[in-house]
Amino acid sequence: MKLADLVTPALVVDAEALDRNLRSMAEALPGARLRPHVKAHKCSALARRQSELGHRSFTCATIREMEGLAAAGLGDDLLLANEVLDARRLGALSRAGARVTVAVDSVETVKAAAAGGVGEVLVDVNVGLPRCGCPPERAGEIAEVARSHDLSVRGVMGYEGHLMLQENRVERAEGTAKAMALLERAHLEVGGEIVSAGGTGTYDLNQAATEIQAGSYALMDTAYAKLGLPFRPALSILATVISRAQAHVVADCGLKALGMDHGNPGIDAGKVWFCSDEHLTYAAETPPRLGDRIRVWPAHVDPTVAYHEAIHLVSGDDVLESWSVDLRGW
Amino acid sequence: MKLADLVTPALVVDAEALDRNLRSMAEALPGARLRPHVKAHKCSALARRQSELGHRSFTCATIREMEGLAAAGLGDDLLLANEVLDARRLGALSRAGARVTVAVDSVETVKAAAAGGVGEVLVDVNVGLPRCGCPPERAGEIAEVARSHDLSVRGVMGYEGHLMLQENRVERAEGTAKAMALLERAHLEVGGEIVSAGGTGTYDLNQAATEIQAGSYALMDTAYAKLGLPFRPALSILATVISRAQAHVVADCGLKALGMDHGNPGIDAGKVWFCSDEHLTYAAETPPRLGDRIRVWPAHVDPTVAYHEAIHLVSGDDVLESWSVDLRGW
Repeated sequence: MKLADLVTPALVVDAEALDRNLRSMAEALPGARLRPHVKAHKCSALARRQSELGHRSFTCATIREMEGLAAAGLGDDLLLANEVLDARRLGALSRAGARVTVAVDSVETVKAAAAGGVGEVLVDVNVGLPRCGCPPERAGEIAEVARSHDLSVRGVMGYEGHLMLQENRVERAEGTAKAMALLERAHLEVGGEIVSAGGTGTYDLNQAATEIQAGSYALMDTAYAKLGLPFRPALSILATVISRAQAHVVADCGLKALGMDHGNPGIDAGKVWFCSDEHLTYAAETPPRLGDRIRVWPAHVDPTVAYHEAIHLVSGDDVLESWSVDLRGW
Repeated sequence: MKLADLVTPALVVDAEALDRNLRSMAEALPGARLRPHVKAHKCSALARRQSELGHRSFTCATIREMEGLAAAGLGDDLLLANEVLDARRLGALSRAGARVTVAVDSVETVKAAAAGGVGEVLVDVNVGLPRCGCPPERAGEIAEVARSHDLSVRGVMGYEGHLMLQENRVERAEGTAKAMALLERAHLEVGGEIVSAGGTGTYDLNQAATEIQAGSYALMDTAYAKLGLPFRPALSILATVISRAQAHVVADCGLKALGMDHGNPGIDAGKVWFCSDEHLTYAAETPPRLGDRIRVWPAHVDPTVAYHEAIHLVSGDDVLESWSVDLRGW
């Protein structure tokens, strides 16, 4: 199959860039030092590549991601790095043979884990991002409650997400050190062998974590590209030029093909004006012909991928493989 | 099934509000005066409701939407209000018995329609929104080219999308009149019985169109709610409170459940701080309990629905029906 045969808009991943990104990370954080987060790619076929490079433990944001990885035979050590009040589907996964660990940050989430039949937890600690996670000083108490419910407490997690896109590397490093001081304090109270944290922006700065939860490094996006990391933009959207006027061009890649929370996507040799539901209107440096294909570079990989049914792995004009984005939904 | 049984985040539609919206529009624009646009709801079950109220012709933005409606037996008169350079799938639909009309705005799209086996076209005219559509003065020429390719030219279309969310009703009306003057000029050159235009924001202001392409009126969103139209917000996302801190609350409805191009969603009795991939962080007027369900009101219905597999039709605590969002993708 050729690139020209794809129905657009189509999510395409450059095979060489992906391979290089995966290998660079596996060298920096081999084996269990990386617990790849699958929320960015939502694709068990891509997770299998990560697994083949030595990472056998995975991070998930949804129960569906946990179920999909287990169904794909990648259930050696799955962490749901998120809180749930109904853990019954996780319990079922565990009984079916997957190793399931879930984040807890309250007495209620501990009880839900126990009631749902999950055996292992990490205490989720707020290290500065106002989202999930208990205050560091409460982590020990939550671990105790978990143990009193016969849960095994594997350690702590704390996501320094507020620093992930900080462009100044020194400030990113200093912020990460501060955040991790909070997590280490909690770890002293909680015990267990795992300190899980980090992401693509701090993968080589986080000195405290025993494992890093990076995910975006595999595909990258224009927001992460600003950080000067050793990972290349591998993912773009192939679009077709469908209309042309004096000052603008229209391609068939709109709001339903792009996560927009980080703003407009980028394009090669042109300036984006705006996106509508199924259209990208832009000014081209050199006007393309109708039917020409262009590449659109998303600003945020995660909510972009979640719109698409398939990721097409390409090399030049060849489509090597088409992978189902099988971990979508909830 | 009860609301409490739904896995969150879940797209829920209030049955009474939907019914009222559909009936209000059917009274204002009965039968073929409305050509409902399905891009906002992407759901053939909802299109069937519109059809049962007398609207047997539909507007689509993608070929997948055309195929899905035809497969659902709603192929009496389908308009692809968008340009395509490869119309082969449309030709196949036509041969299988659906009535297929496609927008054209260039010689190339005319040739693609003819080559693909589509028999009928509308000439798409730019009436002020810098997107698809030929200049009004070129419409006659394009119609001629279409007829020379043995295509039947049913008339013109021109979407005044730049006025759709203009909050001042008088300015919206004046802008629409100006835009439609351009379309009527083109119509004189093109001929045919159809002048297709309009949307939810101009459905009762557009005096020139023989048929209105409104879609958002059925479900509504917080952007359209500002216009004071006689349609109620029917669609929300049911989310679960999963974490709570001193100043903020976290629910499980994030960037992968919400179109974000119109900004943050609204919530009842609280203030949204920010959305992350799977989280909504907000300040609540009265702190909820963990496990409580909240309603999240999306700012833009179209790219929100496109993230979800199902629309759940609810009345109070009861889930009446669950509809597949079967028109997603391309």
